[in-house]
Amino acid sequence: MQTIKEYIHTNQSRFLEELFGLIRIPSVSSVSEHKEDMTRAASYLANELKKAGADISAVYSTSGHPVVFGKKIIDPYKPTVLVYGHYDVMPVDPVELWNSDPFEPVIRDGKIIARGSADDKGQLFMQVKAFEYLLASDLLPCNIKFMIEGEEEMGSPALASWCQENKELLSADLILVSDTSMIGINTPSITVGLRGLAYMEIEVTGPDKDLHSGLYGGAVANPANILAKIIASLHDENNRITIPGFYDDVEILSAEERADMARAPFNIKEYQQKIKIKNSWGEAGYSVSERTSIRPTLDVNGIWGGYIGEGSKTVLPSKASAKISMRLVPNQDPDKTAELFAKHIESISPDTVSVKVIAHHGGFPYVSPVDSRAYNAASKAYETTFGKKPIPVRSGGSIPIISTFEKVLGIKSLLMGFGLDTDLAHSPNENYHLECFNKGIETIVWFYRYFAGDLSEDIK
Amino acid sequence: MQTIKEYIHTNQSRFLEELFGLIRIPSVSSVSEHKEDMTRAASYLANELKKAGADISAVYSTSGHPVVFGKKIIDPYKPTVLVYGHYDVMPVDPVELWNSDPFEPVIRDGKIIARGSADDKGQLFMQVKAFEYLLASDLLPCNIKFMIEGEEEMGSPALASWCQENKELLSADLILVSDTSMIGINTPSITVGLRGLAYMEIEVTGPDKDLHSGLYGGAVANPANILAKIIASLHDENNRITIPGFYDDVEILSAEERADMARAPFNIKEYQQKIKIKNSWGEAGYSVSERTSIRPTLDVNGIWGGYIGEGSKTVLPSKASAKISMRLVPNQDPDKTAELFAKHIESISPDTVSVKVIAHHGGFPYVSPVDSRAYNAASKAYETTFGKKPIPVRSGGSIPIISTFEKVLGIKSLLMGFGLDTDLAHSPNENYHLECFNKGIETIVWFYRYFAGDLSEDIK
Repeated sequence: MQTIKEYIHTNQSRFLEELFGLIRIPSVSSVSEHKEDMTRAASYLANELKKAGADISAVYSTSGHPVVFGKKIIDPYKPTVLVYGHYDVMPVDPVELWNSDPFEPVIRDGKIIARGSADDKGQLFMQVKAFEYLLASDLLPCNIKFMIEGEEEMGSPALASWCQENKELLSADLILVSDTSMIGINTPSITVGLRGLAYMEIEVTGPDKDLHSGLYGGAVANPANILAKIIASLHDENNRITIPGFYDDVEILSAEERADMARAPFNIKEYQQKIKIKNSWGEAGYSVSERTSIRPTLDVNGIWGGYIGEGSKTVLPSKASAKISMRLVPNQDPDKTAELFAKHIESISPDTVSVKVIAHHGGFPYVSPVDSRAYNAASKAYETTFGKKPIPVRSGGSIPIISTFEKVLGIKSLLMGFGLDTDLAHSPNENYHLECFNKGIETIVWFYRYFAGDLSEDIK
Repeated sequence: MQTIKEYIHTNQSRFLEELFGLIRIPSVSSVSEHKEDMTRAASYLANELKKAGADISAVYSTSGHPVVFGKKIIDPYKPTVLVYGHYDVMPVDPVELWNSDPFEPVIRDGKIIARGSADDKGQLFMQVKAFEYLLASDLLPCNIKFMIEGEEEMGSPALASWCQENKELLSADLILVSDTSMIGINTPSITVGLRGLAYMEIEVTGPDKDLHSGLYGGAVANPANILAKIIASLHDENNRITIPGFYDDVEILSAEERADMARAPFNIKEYQQKIKIKNSWGEAGYSVSERTSIRPTLDVNGIWGGYIGEGSKTVLPSKASAKISMRLVPNQDPDKTAELFAKHIESISPDTVSVKVIAHHGGFPYVSPVDSRAYNAASKAYETTFGKKPIPVRSGGSIPIISTFEKVLGIKSLLMGFGLDTDLAHSPNENYHLECFNKGIETIVWFYRYFAGDLSEDIK
């Protein structure tokens, strides 16, 4: 029997070739021209699960992109873990900022560089490979199911009802997710909190067509100027969000809890240098770490209107639009927040233009327990792999479906993610460290053993 | 000898075919991929001038796109008119809003529909055809020169120095320009004022790449939000521009002058319905007509940043930009205004981002006399063609080169434009009424006769 380290080493190039095959399929869920790529990616993954040893492996249709489901039941009386991941990826724009083809993975400086290398194709592949090792070595200590969706980057619009319809199929004791980051490659951490999300779009319409800015400028409200005024008014001088009622439900942490959190390592100079900013920014009265974890936010994700080509064009645009998302914290409700947003925008819109507010996807925030059997098994697994206990942290990101799982399936999730915050998830040149990939597989294997109660170290 | 009306009628289809040949060349000056089209358009036009009877007709190189020069000298002791126009056009975006190919002219409802049909290919062609008639009929009463440039829509960056170098070539008593509009097809008017222009661009840079808005949102200043704040702050609650010193040099009109202007026909309901707006907008204390003529403005012409594709992408953009132009009135200076703008933006930019301000082109405002020999001749020419005296009006648009001509060449301009404000100049579906085209030719012919002192009506 090979140890897990030996198995990874022996099979490294095959693992990567299999992962690269998945990465090469440009499964961008939010862009309709990639519809067929979604199906191709799902089939590819179903086949990988089968090769790894799943009894059943199938592609399920949903009202959106398909879900890949797989399972291996060794004993109905043993615990069952449902692995969740997603095979869809973010768009690649601005594509000119990539140093290589986003869908042709290359390895440079020990990192896999490609869209989806970290988020989430690379991370979910660790789950597939840990599963493969346990089966190949005849060591699988519990039942495993897989549910891999294709709409996570769009806010999982179809998954909740698909889960509702397939509750029995999905029955499990725990949902295991590898789609988050840790503090550093030598500072393992487990994400115990996620922010929620409300993603909106505003469209401001003035005249019915672009006008000559000389002939009309000064007498016709300019939709881009009005949009700027609306956006500017959404933060006050303390960088607090001005939407009435926005903070009403925000969980207030005690001084003790905040002091606890402040013990996590953080260096403001390194933080600023890493992303090349001169100064950080944010809500008065909170630290950088708090601003990205326990406090809600409002950010423009995209803005456009009028002439955006080369040179100059003297036009008064007919329309201007912005995509604006809010990150939410416990106990904010995304639907309520979207409504507050829409109502507020309506109330401040002047009568010189028409303003339309569209709600894109949303998701609830999530906080997971740190005293559960699953958390303790995970903590021990990280310690075995990394030589130190993981730090529990709250992340600023969102995986809206996690709170939905708890509501619909009644199952808690454990977030064993092995990304790094240098992975450039969602950005050009997304990458994933091979070392994270390998250590992730190892840690997941240990987790299954500890979770099933087997504390032997024969595979070390 | 044919009357001018007969001549236009007999030659109508040839006139249009010749004009359409010019329109079919996509001479978009601000987009570098059209560089060769600029040369093609210039050669085409030079050939048209030659066919019409110019003694000399040549394409001159400049530091930018070429200038077409032509002349017909009948007697050095007679007055000389220098016709100015431009063969370059605006970009055609958003091209999907055009009902037909912007560079394949069609005639619908008595209008030529194409980019450049009005601004300025159609209008400058009236000048060429009036010239052709006068020569063909052996009636040319004065010397005529043509100077047709290819960079008007970019702010004529090369023309001032080209004029400086060719002062003798360009010597004339008057510059005649057909590149403006009149109040209505039955309400002729002559533009006696133009606004100046200062065209700027702001680029706000935050982090060096797009970031995940969940992981960083709340702690990193968002360039799009900051840009919105900057733009919003540029107007106060009375819609006055907040840049310190901006209004210092603005010409203040007397109550009498304002009352005079207010006599021009204007219907606010029709104005709003025409461009489909619910309410007009503008600086407190001024009428709609004043806001677009005697008052300066500041408009966003384009804004962009972050993810602007389909669906949603949770990104905190690295950069956000806006093109912003200001229309200026007598006695504002575009360079001084550009400096005030840049200084102000710098002074309000927070230290959480980098802000770059770029000055594109600018131009001085212009006011022309209404008691000159040229104006009186023009007034009489319109009366002959339209049966009523033209109204002198100040336009909100800019032809920056007009004030440059006065400075460099020491020659006043007369703006005999036959556009309508329904022409959609700079917009999709730009069009030019055939009736305006024909009446324009007629009026220009009469103008030359009256200007040269010949008041006979034999060609009526």
